[in-house]
Amino acid sequence: MTLLVTIRGWEVEPWLDRFRRLLPDKRIVTPGDDFARDRVEYVATWKHPAGALRDLPKLKAIFSLGAGVDHVFADPDLPDVPVARVVDPDLTMRMSEWVLLHVLMHHRQQRMYDWQQVEKIWAEDREQPAAKDVRVGVMGLGELGADAARKLAVVGFDVAGWARSRHRLEGIRSFAGAAELDAFLARTDILVCLLPLTPDTRDILDRALFGKLARDGRLGGPIVINGGRGGLQNEDDIIAALDDATLKAAVLDVFKSEPLPPDSPLWSHPRVTVSPHNSAVSNPDAIAAMIARQIRAFERGEALRNVVDRTRQY
Amino acid sequence: MTLLVTIRGWEVEPWLDRFRRLLPDKRIVTPGDDFARDRVEYVATWKHPAGALRDLPKLKAIFSLGAGVDHVFADPDLPDVPVARVVDPDLTMRMSEWVLLHVLMHHRQQRMYDWQQVEKIWAEDREQPAAKDVRVGVMGLGELGADAARKLAVVGFDVAGWARSRHRLEGIRSFAGAAELDAFLARTDILVCLLPLTPDTRDILDRALFGKLARDGRLGGPIVINGGRGGLQNEDDIIAALDDATLKAAVLDVFKSEPLPPDSPLWSHPRVTVSPHNSAVSNPDAIAAMIARQIRAFERGEALRNVVDRTRQY
Repeated sequence: MTLLVTIRGWEVEPWLDRFRRLLPDKRIVTPGDDFARDRVEYVATWKHPAGALRDLPKLKAIFSLGAGVDHVFADPDLPDVPVARVVDPDLTMRMSEWVLLHVLMHHRQQRMYDWQQVEKIWAEDREQPAAKDVRVGVMGLGELGADAARKLAVVGFDVAGWARSRHRLEGIRSFAGAAELDAFLARTDILVCLLPLTPDTRDILDRALFGKLARDGRLGGPIVINGGRGGLQNEDDIIAALDDATLKAAVLDVFKSEPLPPDSPLWSHPRVTVSPHNSAVSNPDAIAAMIARQIRAFERGEALRNVVDRTRQY
Repeated sequence: MTLLVTIRGWEVEPWLDRFRRLLPDKRIVTPGDDFARDRVEYVATWKHPAGALRDLPKLKAIFSLGAGVDHVFADPDLPDVPVARVVDPDLTMRMSEWVLLHVLMHHRQQRMYDWQQVEKIWAEDREQPAAKDVRVGVMGLGELGADAARKLAVVGFDVAGWARSRHRLEGIRSFAGAAELDAFLARTDILVCLLPLTPDTRDILDRALFGKLARDGRLGGPIVINGGRGGLQNEDDIIAALDDATLKAAVLDVFKSEPLPPDSPLWSHPRVTVSPHNSAVSNPDAIAAMIARQIRAFERGEALRNVVDRTRQY
């Protein structure tokens, strides 16, 4: 019984070591190894090449090694077995830290105060709304979005959430589906995007959407914060919307092409904050342990948890 | 029956207007007006000059117009009547926003990522502890400190509090009094100071205290954040402690002399964040309404609320 670990962009050895320690009775292999394909029962993947999982006749389940499963469904030859997402409390906490930081940086106008410090300007009487007078809208109310929304509400922001289906979160106004998207955008000063990347959400952050955000807010224009996936955003539209003041600022942790190419205008735009896809770095120990637990439970006859809906792709 | 409003450093007219609207049956005066001193029953003050409240034989209560009462007790000729503090949920919310912002900026190393963006450096694999592995210590557990500590704990930080007396706050380890100060400091990576300024706390943030903060933390050295009063800190000691790496960074909203003089080295120190005493700007409407409500209740025979202990001075 074999677990195939297939990884692009990260070092593979530390993952092999972890799985060998956690699952000593299994054979742990990578695509370059010499192994019998008909003995592979599980795959743990991060961005495997298309077609790499063909000809695995005994495959029972695929596990994503990082947050999101868009990299799994990018494979048109994906075998028809359950795909399980990572749900890691550590990763959730980290994403909410990042969201809170960047919402507060813009809410409290920290970039302006940084500039004032350089210029030695003491100006205590700038207009500063309280959090309750600033409307934050969270797109995507999965594990990450729901946690961020809840913590933003604790800080005092006026928080709403939007997702494909209705979510009930205490103290958070819920908008659902395409029919309610415009109403959600119209009451949003700071938009936080934590959507999964699916055929439905690709390029959702575009010029048309930015134009529907609130224009009557207390912060001098809408702000977009994307901690989801680069595929959710149209980067040319972001630059254009910043330059014609449709947007006041953007904070981007994810990009269409990563690492962000040196010639991208996002790097040096004065109203863009770039972070290197580190809003919520996966904790490899926690994730490997979770996958090992899932495999053990599955082999005892329990159902796999956090299985992705193939139609929705999240 | 007269309310005397005495203010230094702020415009007085907007306060007079508010009180005249809220208390139409009272005479509202300022020190320059022609009024009968023996008809003054209440004083609302922000930094009145020493001695200015003498010869008010019918005075019943003094109200502070801003957070903190150190400016009231700075008057050696203060009449022996109750002094009431401001307790304003709006002000508390604003202070916690500011504390969370600056704790998260250092926790998430935002200054380093800002620099990386300028240099177009994509480095996603920097060591980044999770909030639960960073120990925040809040000095002062009054309205402001308790709220900040609670919200820091919601974000996930490992939070402890220190105050003169024992406070019971869920999920927050409590240290009390001089005897437990060293133990509190020894487990603190990020120190948040929201103490009142009293004879006991003056200059408490000094070299000796900085030297007792945790040296084994995950952030590369201790960080001090002071949102209380400038009188709590020794500014020469802060500079010296930053320069010999006893401190990694300081965030200061308050200073010994305000506005911070242009020749202060704090303005341009690369590891100091200066904010112009705006961590929690008082909302004049809320505070005037609260004082008017206190006066009405007092005249109905109810006890004054938020009265300061003269011995402790908070």
